[in-house]
Amino acid sequence: MTSVGVVETRYLDLPGPLPLDCGRELSRVRVAYETYGTMSPDRDNVILVCHALSGDAHAAGIAAQPPEEGTREGYAKGLGWWDGMIGPGKAFDTDRYLVVSTNLLGGCRGTTGPSSTDPATGEPYGPDFPVITVADMVRCERAFLDELGIDRLAAVAGGSLGGMQALEWATRYPDQVDAIVVIASTHALQPQGVAWNAIAREAIMRDPDWQGGRYYGTGRAPDAGMGVARMVGHITYLSAPGLAEKFGRRLQDGLNYTITEPEFAVESYLRHQAAAFVRRFDANTYLYLSRALTYFELGPLDQVKARTLLISFSSDWLYPPAASQEIADTLTRLGKSVENHVIDAPYGHDCFLLEEARQTPIVRRFLQEGTE
Amino acid sequence: MTSVGVVETRYLDLPGPLPLDCGRELSRVRVAYETYGTMSPDRDNVILVCHALSGDAHAAGIAAQPPEEGTREGYAKGLGWWDGMIGPGKAFDTDRYLVVSTNLLGGCRGTTGPSSTDPATGEPYGPDFPVITVADMVRCERAFLDELGIDRLAAVAGGSLGGMQALEWATRYPDQVDAIVVIASTHALQPQGVAWNAIAREAIMRDPDWQGGRYYGTGRAPDAGMGVARMVGHITYLSAPGLAEKFGRRLQDGLNYTITEPEFAVESYLRHQAAAFVRRFDANTYLYLSRALTYFELGPLDQVKARTLLISFSSDWLYPPAASQEIADTLTRLGKSVENHVIDAPYGHDCFLLEEARQTPIVRRFLQEGTE
Repeated sequence: MTSVGVVETRYLDLPGPLPLDCGRELSRVRVAYETYGTMSPDRDNVILVCHALSGDAHAAGIAAQPPEEGTREGYAKGLGWWDGMIGPGKAFDTDRYLVVSTNLLGGCRGTTGPSSTDPATGEPYGPDFPVITVADMVRCERAFLDELGIDRLAAVAGGSLGGMQALEWATRYPDQVDAIVVIASTHALQPQGVAWNAIAREAIMRDPDWQGGRYYGTGRAPDAGMGVARMVGHITYLSAPGLAEKFGRRLQDGLNYTITEPEFAVESYLRHQAAAFVRRFDANTYLYLSRALTYFELGPLDQVKARTLLISFSSDWLYPPAASQEIADTLTRLGKSVENHVIDAPYGHDCFLLEEARQTPIVRRFLQEGTE
Repeated sequence: MTSVGVVETRYLDLPGPLPLDCGRELSRVRVAYETYGTMSPDRDNVILVCHALSGDAHAAGIAAQPPEEGTREGYAKGLGWWDGMIGPGKAFDTDRYLVVSTNLLGGCRGTTGPSSTDPATGEPYGPDFPVITVADMVRCERAFLDELGIDRLAAVAGGSLGGMQALEWATRYPDQVDAIVVIASTHALQPQGVAWNAIAREAIMRDPDWQGGRYYGTGRAPDAGMGVARMVGHITYLSAPGLAEKFGRRLQDGLNYTITEPEFAVESYLRHQAAAFVRRFDANTYLYLSRALTYFELGPLDQVKARTLLISFSSDWLYPPAASQEIADTLTRLGKSVENHVIDAPYGHDCFLLEEARQTPIVRRFLQEGTE
């Protein structure tokens, strides 16, 4: 299997204002995107891939721009966040499909978000950016695809918050999406997940450098709080057995009787993760996307026409297999076409980014069946 | 069942310096303590109760001093943190036993800790307080009981960090303790728990108001970071099903599209918990006790003579039943007297403070058997 090669992120400005759930609208929305593969003459082979909280438009291939330092393995090489799944012969096979990936509305990697300039003031939006929802993200994706002349999607796919978008697509635009691939996601975040997200946001907002969200251009950003938010997120993305396997109770450098310095290897790892994340991610975007994903509640599934593939992971306690099962049961009861797979793997929620080898045959066969 | 009535916290100054695992020693250690019940003529009916991270010496009865506002139900009434377990006819029956409770070494509720005055400087210790261990806490308890003329304990009991102390007593002073009651505890915190504790400490230390630990007398304390630490702790003490039952995804007041204000009831609850906790607890004590409990690793059990009672709770994912089972298996293999009970209850680690009715008959019978 090979890579899609070097990829340039492109940008598209939506022509009209984007209406939002909160009642406001956004004008001059810019969308950062990448595409991999070739559009068929019938324009019927487009797959939209939706990223999760900390992702971006660069889903596959090697970034043309020099990559910022990041936390994921592969980042240093400029590899897209789902490079293992998108490419020739891969799960989302670019020999067959045109895969389109956008940075989410509210993002900080090229698409309009709280760090963008508010055309009304000429200043960054900051906390004046409207509070957005998953439905708003999907509206933005729909408007973006309109501009590309893509009416209909062969599939929408994503993990976590990306899976929520796929589900939203199937209910909001039932006639415009043939299939959805929903990985490690849920119809509604469970209350414990709501709490973890609230704590992560508190950590950011309680950092005095957050400055009520107006930190742009001040030379100070809430890196300390963002670091804590990332640490919380990170541990919820892993599983207890996964942590035990990776770090155990291993000490970093003997026992030094210190409070301020890392003693256990996992402490050192968390600090590293936090430091790398704050370099590449905007704190306000974290707040807005975190809020959007806690709001998400999937509407009625009666109108769904898309074939649905659900994949979850046995050790994912944040987006547990039971959530996918619930969606599958509802779709089945309604007589819809649905497949639900639970992959037994120890790495928690992060499995959706790691267990490519085991997801690939499931996704390939599912997509294939849609073309038969 | 009745209460032990109004109780006054007393204070005792240890005569000699206290040697510590880190190689340093502490001079002029003061211990805050309470007692409930009456010592037998043979001095053979003393039970030492050890508190967990956020507890204090006031384990039972109604505080003589007006109580500070706190987070636990009962606090407002000045009730001790284990009042449901300690009293006439209760699990630790004050008609039979003299129950002794101390504030831990490193604490902030009367026993010497980082907020105490360093006799060498006349200033609060702050970050110059030595890094302590569970063994140090137990050494302090041993020295304290010496002063009270108590050589031998009928039992040592505690939950969580308190259970670690009970285990440490049985291995460090095998000839001086007849029985230990170890509730919702472990031989060594699992790596995920190490990580949660590290994150809580990071939240405190990254708060600029922490000031490297020298915040006393500055008019500023790391309340923001402590609040986040408490939120993290709080969610790890509850279970996902418990949270679902208590809060679900209930909104506080409709959907308001706000990032800064609580939307979900669980968010509002977390903020309340955090605000109440910072009013009654010292941030440096949190750091030191959190560090001590992550260090704890139970030594060899060959020398243990105490009968051992282990209780854990099915939904406790921080101190899971498997940890107690491991201790029980080791003791059984060594031919020691051990009982292990897993109580099926949905409230996570907090069960040890909540499930009094189901713990009581187990503890009463276990203690009774020791006197037959």
